[in-house]
Amino acid sequence: MAAQNFAGVLVPVLTPFTAEGEPDARRHAAFCRWLLDEGAAGLAIFGTTSEANSLSPTERMKLLDRLIEAGIPAAKLMPGTGACALTDAADLVRHAVGHGCGGVLMLPPFYYKGVPDDGIFAFISRVIEKVGSPALRMYLYHIPPVAVIGYSLDLVGRFIKAYPQTVVGLKDSSGDWNNTAALLERYPGFAIFPGSEIFLLEGLRHGAAGTITATGNINTGGIRKLYDDWQKPEADALQAEITRMRKVLQGYTVIPALKRVIAHFWRDPGWAAVRPPLMPLDEAQSARLLSDLERIGFRLGARSKAEAA
Amino acid sequence: MAAQNFAGVLVPVLTPFTAEGEPDARRHAAFCRWLLDEGAAGLAIFGTTSEANSLSPTERMKLLDRLIEAGIPAAKLMPGTGACALTDAADLVRHAVGHGCGGVLMLPPFYYKGVPDDGIFAFISRVIEKVGSPALRMYLYHIPPVAVIGYSLDLVGRFIKAYPQTVVGLKDSSGDWNNTAALLERYPGFAIFPGSEIFLLEGLRHGAAGTITATGNINTGGIRKLYDDWQKPEADALQAEITRMRKVLQGYTVIPALKRVIAHFWRDPGWAAVRPPLMPLDEAQSARLLSDLERIGFRLGARSKAEAA
Repeated sequence: MAAQNFAGVLVPVLTPFTAEGEPDARRHAAFCRWLLDEGAAGLAIFGTTSEANSLSPTERMKLLDRLIEAGIPAAKLMPGTGACALTDAADLVRHAVGHGCGGVLMLPPFYYKGVPDDGIFAFISRVIEKVGSPALRMYLYHIPPVAVIGYSLDLVGRFIKAYPQTVVGLKDSSGDWNNTAALLERYPGFAIFPGSEIFLLEGLRHGAAGTITATGNINTGGIRKLYDDWQKPEADALQAEITRMRKVLQGYTVIPALKRVIAHFWRDPGWAAVRPPLMPLDEAQSARLLSDLERIGFRLGARSKAEAA
Repeated sequence: MAAQNFAGVLVPVLTPFTAEGEPDARRHAAFCRWLLDEGAAGLAIFGTTSEANSLSPTERMKLLDRLIEAGIPAAKLMPGTGACALTDAADLVRHAVGHGCGGVLMLPPFYYKGVPDDGIFAFISRVIEKVGSPALRMYLYHIPPVAVIGYSLDLVGRFIKAYPQTVVGLKDSSGDWNNTAALLERYPGFAIFPGSEIFLLEGLRHGAAGTITATGNINTGGIRKLYDDWQKPEADALQAEITRMRKVLQGYTVIPALKRVIAHFWRDPGWAAVRPPLMPLDEAQSARLLSDLERIGFRLGARSKAEAA
């Protein structure tokens, strides 16, 4: 199996929009820089939380170009490159590899339902072969609650066997610890990232590589602390703390809620914008969210470089 | 409400591929011509049956360009223009309107699940406003078994009210007659096309505009006959006949099955190719399908122009 490029807390970075609804490259780069300063080990830009599937492939590629121009290290980036059409997916993967990204996060094709594992295998294989680069490191993105289509345990094994140097890990956003545990047990050395920090401590105890989690957008430091200290006596208390925070967020539509938190703490109302079909929280929801967060003593990490950007 | 451009049997045209897996523009145009000769009132290219979501937006636009070049009348075309990103969807709609297509068939954005009607309304509204053309005629594409996201009865009413000259119809592939019946009752004058010929006669009796159906790819003539003769005494017998044919197909994965039928009757094995994540029928399935069809006396319509192309 190939050497791993990523371990620790990865953040599926929120995508800010301009008043005209275009991806905001300036705010995006500043936010990425801040997340790295806060302790993110990597940036899974263009994940579900990034509203990546609400961006065209061209918009995604341009935004990545701008991040690289802004000096965000490509080695820290794991862009989402999934698409329903293998031609789009291959273009996105090729572009990410061309920039030297540390990896790519790969959704299965998600329009057709009930497709056989053979069909998903053929899709991903053709993407890998079309790109044809030994530099490619692919992380499978398993998120059946949203994509509906997912990677079964057996299918993951087929990829590891067929592409041991290329398919090197998986983000498990099934929300099902039993699935994560089964992956960890069956595929040691394969980098498994639970898709929620709720499973971080249990995951690390069973060999997980870290976590790639939406809440990392506003709680990077807290989650990172558990990652650093998971073998210390206070680990369970740290887990309880980040779980409490996560549960507050889960009471809301998570993507607009996260953006609302950034908009509030940075006094930048434009940050709350989402692209349809998502909708922003209304005023009542926003007020309740902020009061819920205040009650648990939440504070956003230091503003640092993003403020100056 | 705007005048209707379509009525009758529309076919969501299969997309043939070359041996290299690229969309085959030549076979595609020949097939479209044959479908019109067989009695199709319109061609809903780039629907679900067309594997449209397995094509990139660029591939779809190029294939439409080639159809127009080949002389297929734009007025007969209702290309699928749905996409998860409103920027892609707007590009596709603008391109279709630019060619003078009779209409477009519009999926809701289908990646994010559990989105509110307000979010779907905002998405479609922005597409309509970005395109900004009085020539646009949009047909909503409701197919919750595949897209998961759909257009609720109330949401359809909001579109009709907000865009009476633009949103003029709907393809109902819910597979639920009660939904079709409710649409027909609530929105007279709005062009409702059941997504299966199984509901054609009942639909016509309640004011449906016709049908847009996958099986139309191989049984255009049979379905057309019922559309023409639905008020004659033999209508129920004609319905029973096309239903029997449809039920045979439903025993298989429909898209590869339809392609297999074309490949067989036209002695053109390459026609059977599908793009991953779909997979072709295996040999045993193919043999069983052809024998099932033989048993009900199925024959593909005359080869006509397609053969000569």
